[in-house]
Amino acid sequence: MNNVNNLKKQKNILNSIKIFDTTLRDGEQAPGVALTTDEKIQIAQKLDNLGVDTIELGFPAVSEGEKNSAKLIRELGLNANLCGLSRVIKNDIDALIDCDLTYMHTFIGTSPLHRDYKLKKSKEEILNMTVEAIEYAKDHGITTEFSAEDATRTEQDYLIDIFKAAEDAGADLINVPDTVGILIPSSAETLIATLKEELKSPISVHFHNDFGLAVANSLMAFEAGAKQAHLTVNGIGERGGNASLEEFIMSLVIAYGIDLDVDTTQLFNLSDFVSRITGIKMPPNKPIVGENAFAHESGIHVHGVLENAATYEPIPPEIVGHSRKIALGKHTGANALKAKLNEYDIEMNEDQFCSVYDQIKTLGDKGKCVTDADLKAIAVTALGQAKKESIKLLGLSVMSGESVSSTATVKLLIEDEEKETSKTGVGPVDAALNAIQYLVKGTTNIELEEYHIEAITGGTDALAEVFVITSDEHGNKATGRATREDVIMASVDAVLNSINKILMIKDS
Amino acid sequence: MNNVNNLKKQKNILNSIKIFDTTLRDGEQAPGVALTTDEKIQIAQKLDNLGVDTIELGFPAVSEGEKNSAKLIRELGLNANLCGLSRVIKNDIDALIDCDLTYMHTFIGTSPLHRDYKLKKSKEEILNMTVEAIEYAKDHGITTEFSAEDATRTEQDYLIDIFKAAEDAGADLINVPDTVGILIPSSAETLIATLKEELKSPISVHFHNDFGLAVANSLMAFEAGAKQAHLTVNGIGERGGNASLEEFIMSLVIAYGIDLDVDTTQLFNLSDFVSRITGIKMPPNKPIVGENAFAHESGIHVHGVLENAATYEPIPPEIVGHSRKIALGKHTGANALKAKLNEYDIEMNEDQFCSVYDQIKTLGDKGKCVTDADLKAIAVTALGQAKKESIKLLGLSVMSGESVSSTATVKLLIEDEEKETSKTGVGPVDAALNAIQYLVKGTTNIELEEYHIEAITGGTDALAEVFVITSDEHGNKATGRATREDVIMASVDAVLNSINKILMIKDS
Repeated sequence: MNNVNNLKKQKNILNSIKIFDTTLRDGEQAPGVALTTDEKIQIAQKLDNLGVDTIELGFPAVSEGEKNSAKLIRELGLNANLCGLSRVIKNDIDALIDCDLTYMHTFIGTSPLHRDYKLKKSKEEILNMTVEAIEYAKDHGITTEFSAEDATRTEQDYLIDIFKAAEDAGADLINVPDTVGILIPSSAETLIATLKEELKSPISVHFHNDFGLAVANSLMAFEAGAKQAHLTVNGIGERGGNASLEEFIMSLVIAYGIDLDVDTTQLFNLSDFVSRITGIKMPPNKPIVGENAFAHESGIHVHGVLENAATYEPIPPEIVGHSRKIALGKHTGANALKAKLNEYDIEMNEDQFCSVYDQIKTLGDKGKCVTDADLKAIAVTALGQAKKESIKLLGLSVMSGESVSSTATVKLLIEDEEKETSKTGVGPVDAALNAIQYLVKGTTNIELEEYHIEAITGGTDALAEVFVITSDEHGNKATGRATREDVIMASVDAVLNSINKILMIKDS
Repeated sequence: MNNVNNLKKQKNILNSIKIFDTTLRDGEQAPGVALTTDEKIQIAQKLDNLGVDTIELGFPAVSEGEKNSAKLIRELGLNANLCGLSRVIKNDIDALIDCDLTYMHTFIGTSPLHRDYKLKKSKEEILNMTVEAIEYAKDHGITTEFSAEDATRTEQDYLIDIFKAAEDAGADLINVPDTVGILIPSSAETLIATLKEELKSPISVHFHNDFGLAVANSLMAFEAGAKQAHLTVNGIGERGGNASLEEFIMSLVIAYGIDLDVDTTQLFNLSDFVSRITGIKMPPNKPIVGENAFAHESGIHVHGVLENAATYEPIPPEIVGHSRKIALGKHTGANALKAKLNEYDIEMNEDQFCSVYDQIKTLGDKGKCVTDADLKAIAVTALGQAKKESIKLLGLSVMSGESVSSTATVKLLIEDEEKETSKTGVGPVDAALNAIQYLVKGTTNIELEEYHIEAITGGTDALAEVFVITSDEHGNKATGRATREDVIMASVDAVLNSINKILMIKDS
């Protein structure tokens, strides 16, 4: 498919590619992230199912919790190599041995900045510590990968010296960290090509993403002969993070056409899981796994995708376990609108269609995003068959406190009839919505599908924005949204808004 | 500073670089984004202050709102060129002329997929439409940039033919869109080098980010002689988005050392503004502008940064208008902890210090993130001077409803004395917190600095997680956090937790 991506680029990267995942070590070093042992176990299991070659579990010398996690993950019997981080210090290596880990990633800073300010050690001292540590580990039968931290700001002569000394001491892999992410793609290629000429061991790369180039730099390093990349799920890590596992894998598989032994269909779920566990949410425009990675809104794009999805998609979403989304908004073209109306079996004449089309454009121009439910409500109104508000709120009172159940009394006007009830709930919002659900039961059976408070910030008197989706027994779904200073009132308004939309569709 | 980034790479990109921003056009095509005219005006003004060369304002033929925005932005008298999008259709060009725009970005799909499925037109028809449209625009004195949509999946011979025809018809710039983001850095370089040999006009690139490579591909295109890049703030746009303005600019300025006429100190605020306006939040690990782009947590990193920030930072945060953040967590080393305690003037002996250090590690192992206030509370406890809970909740009752003020009655045990009051508020949470504030006034004057509901999702009976920061009159600040099914109870617990922390610090 990609005639533009010259196949000759594959020649250096066809064989024995290794995927080294460091989500649990460098990913976890992201500020604000701290994983429990249970969480680490679950992520390790999912990485193993995906098919990564090596999982860096953590830094055993740092704390008892780290050691304990490493031991428990060891007991899972995963296929992947299990690796621990250590400084070039005997204590750190012993901690790794304590956990029965047989793969070590050991490092020391080699750049002038790291030597002078952080370590306060000479080139010779650093080189000697490196050799001693590697020899000690190899004496204990440990597979050893050596990193010259801040390699990309280290004098090239010294970098080659220390890498050669590490090789001679028995290091199995030589890893090149771009610790503050300053490489550009062309320099990544040159640096790895130079090192490849000097070294015998397989070269690994560990690139940071401070300028958004970590994945590209890793790919260029592979073109120059690197055999392993350090990656994290969602690219999480210190500062701008690390090279993203899912972007790197899909670039190799799709753009380079390389046959990796990885189950790419698990990428979307893995990303979502790590995002929930770490609390680091990905933006909708995150490549491969973002909410909008396979979403289409503008008229021209939607038109193209309806004819053939490949017109505006590089790969089908199923390859990464994702799904396609076609949205309506101000950029919606007539073709997309007609396709949507057909999908809902709504037939209309040309005048009615033009009216719906104009209303959607107008909403878009006002900065509003049009959902499917909004579209249905607008379409039904245009057909001239819609009632306005079938259900109105006449009164609401809630009580809540410590050691009694929250209680809400709601009075609604439902099709010109007043109805009132009291219900309890686990909180006042739950109580109020239980009461509404009970009152409308004669008219429609509503289930609350989603409930979000979108933003309450700045103070308790700031606006609460509530977003809900309700559904009825026929599978009709509608969104509702309300913004009020009182979170309970906002919730009730949003739910009634949503129910009224469903009733409009039903009555049509 | 970057000896690794060979200076010879600059040779092709030293002169007349143009930054073309399309946040308001392709960025706005991101699903879910719809900007009002006022919002567009504000973003355009900020882009102009930053110093971009060209601002693509929108697609005037799409709607009246788009036309109106374009006209109003024209009236601002900005320095940047103002550009409108149009298909190679007379109607679209007329819409652009109606808005008094004198710069047109015109496009038509050229790949087999776009020809056969979307346009259902032959190569010849597409080429003829292109030539006619460019001639028509040039007859009206409009600067014309021509895009062969899906250029990277177009047969190279035909791509060169249509670009040459566009040049001959008078196109001022030739733009190369990687519409579905399939390029890799090395193929981007080869493609642009090939086109540069064939064409006389300046070459522009418009790269999408489906594999996370848009910025890297644009940089490689510049190395091959491209003169302009299409970019969006935060990389927003269709699917995985576009090349990110801030990453591209900072790569050129820092990694390539190019002197761009752009005020980089505005990048952080611009990103933040666009994020708020579009609702597309960037993750903390977003390069350049993310919350953690200059944050440090792991012990080794914090130690290095305290000695010299450059050890773990590629650039000082001030260059992009950002700031540095040093966090404490499970990876916190003893050095960082000592620095923090010094900062707060807390002196302790070695035993006390070890106790604090162990507690922070333990909290980290449990998956908790340790804030400054937590640290102070732990440190004060370790000093043996802390009281436990100075304030306890004995009772709470709230009432809320339509057309009456929300009322809360709170009973607290404050230093062994029972106190009770009722207060009103704009909602039940506000009322409860007003009552607490009133009751503790004799003990401490508390202000609520921040109030967030972190996540309520899945249903009204799901957990509400409330996060608060309170402060007293001496500038002491403490966080509080609570998770309950009832949003009001969670709020009250979080505030009391926070107040108790402040009282511990005061009493020490």
